[in-house]
Amino acid sequence: MKILFTSVGRRVELLQAFRAAAEKLDIALTVMGADITKSAPALFFCDERRLVCKIQEKEYIPQLLSICEKEKVDCLIPTIDTDLLLLAENKEKFEAIGTKVLISAVDKIKLCRDKNYTADYFVSLGLKSPLPVNSVEKYEEALKRGKVSFPAFIKPKDGSSSINAYKVENLEDLRLYAEKIEDYIIQPFISGREYTIDIFCDYEGNPVYITPRERLAVRSGEVLKSRITQDDTMIAEMRRLIADYRPCGQITVQLIREDVTGDDYYIEINPRFGGGAPLSMKAGADSASAILRMLRGDKLSYIERAAIDGAIYSRYDQSVRVK
Amino acid sequence: MKILFTSVGRRVELLQAFRAAAEKLDIALTVMGADITKSAPALFFCDERRLVCKIQEKEYIPQLLSICEKEKVDCLIPTIDTDLLLLAENKEKFEAIGTKVLISAVDKIKLCRDKNYTADYFVSLGLKSPLPVNSVEKYEEALKRGKVSFPAFIKPKDGSSSINAYKVENLEDLRLYAEKIEDYIIQPFISGREYTIDIFCDYEGNPVYITPRERLAVRSGEVLKSRITQDDTMIAEMRRLIADYRPCGQITVQLIREDVTGDDYYIEINPRFGGGAPLSMKAGADSASAILRMLRGDKLSYIERAAIDGAIYSRYDQSVRVK
Repeated sequence: MKILFTSVGRRVELLQAFRAAAEKLDIALTVMGADITKSAPALFFCDERRLVCKIQEKEYIPQLLSICEKEKVDCLIPTIDTDLLLLAENKEKFEAIGTKVLISAVDKIKLCRDKNYTADYFVSLGLKSPLPVNSVEKYEEALKRGKVSFPAFIKPKDGSSSINAYKVENLEDLRLYAEKIEDYIIQPFISGREYTIDIFCDYEGNPVYITPRERLAVRSGEVLKSRITQDDTMIAEMRRLIADYRPCGQITVQLIREDVTGDDYYIEINPRFGGGAPLSMKAGADSASAILRMLRGDKLSYIERAAIDGAIYSRYDQSVRVK
Repeated sequence: MKILFTSVGRRVELLQAFRAAAEKLDIALTVMGADITKSAPALFFCDERRLVCKIQEKEYIPQLLSICEKEKVDCLIPTIDTDLLLLAENKEKFEAIGTKVLISAVDKIKLCRDKNYTADYFVSLGLKSPLPVNSVEKYEEALKRGKVSFPAFIKPKDGSSSINAYKVENLEDLRLYAEKIEDYIIQPFISGREYTIDIFCDYEGNPVYITPRERLAVRSGEVLKSRITQDDTMIAEMRRLIADYRPCGQITVQLIREDVTGDDYYIEINPRFGGGAPLSMKAGADSASAILRMLRGDKLSYIERAAIDGAIYSRYDQSVRVK
């Protein structure tokens, strides 16, 4: 069995999860990694490495198709946001040569990229979301009408990993940051605990694992310490999302449970393996194993509370010589 | 042989370097780790774990002394900035019970904590440093006299890991950030490549390893990708620093080599193992091995260019269950 991870970057732990799962299932797995630079650390943990052009270049998809066809790749797994729409749009071309792509539908990918749409989508499902506006003037208006208050949160409409995301306390600071960020959104700041939910669905979008994790410590938007929290409300809310979204493979949902009300405010959907996904997998919601079983033809079913409730995982750095 | 690492936190790779060195030297090493929380990931890689109170509490040093005395610890190695001054001030108490502490002299530690002093210190050694001022008014004056320009860099006088460090382009932004940071310094922004120099000296302050590394990629002030760069100028500059500073054990120096002039502007000294120190050790400047040899009584000598010139190391995340 061959799996190709695109933009494999630093995803060492994700690859290791697949290797460990293959060993347990007694599957001979070839881990392939693609990246634009041969110094990507995860490439050094792959059985096969492929250098590819940048995602923005028009040769990107043809290059991936050529690798998949030549190597008879069973499954392609994307890992970064900028890859997703392009792969969704070209999914059928990969399927035509026998390569499954773990990517959700085009319209669903689009609503994740623009946070203006994401909030509307959550609300359309009956979930709460801090409603964004896309100009300081609109936030000012809403302030005057008593609809919103400070602190507020300003961030790029298509950002990730909290890059250029700021909590601001007053209109003056809001204006200042608005000048610095192109295409921003402004949301009311929700004070509460932050959670990530790792969701794994089969190729048809049926849920297999739903694993809420509290984000106990974060560095540059990536989780450093996380606690599995099997919360019935969140799981029920995610079943509602899954029924409509029909994720193909892994997605990651972010939310804040507001301290005062206890309500869950949903922030974003990343329709790919999140950086902290290996934590849920180690705790028992083993998406890697599920993917391998799915690829060999097993029918998957929903496993309730698969991950160990209350388990805490903490991350640390390792290094590898890349040149 | 027993080594105690204080505030061991996420320093897994550092511990691993000591284990690997002990194995090669055929030394039976007990790795002990202390932290305030039992969920510190590195504790799970120690042979012995000790929970201690916060550094600020007055029981901290007595607790460490008690551990060292009871366990006959050969050497204590600090890892975070807030530990350093206290340990330097109490070094003799540890030595009195037979525990070496890898910490430089009190006056040398002090000049690292306050970046107003650090710059003066570099200049006193004939090295360049972007001279700091500690008020917006002073920077404004210097601007008027044509002594400085924008961009400028504003950061806490005793900060670390680029927390609250900002590059600003004009006086308006400078004033804004100045309001946000208590006890800041403002320096002219130096445009150039960033380097870290890992220095290891014996217990008497004689140099053993000097390893410049270029910082190729950084996340939250910690290096993600680094290239060993055996640069004669930097090494000569560091020999000048070492002759006066007399580091005890490992220190880390940060600098920027200015693009236009090629001059080295020294920014800070961290008189402890830097986060990226294991990279230089893996490349051949193996401070862990040197410490173990020193502790067993070997006389160390200076090894020129011990690390592989041009080697690039890249970091990635791993996780461990801590509860």
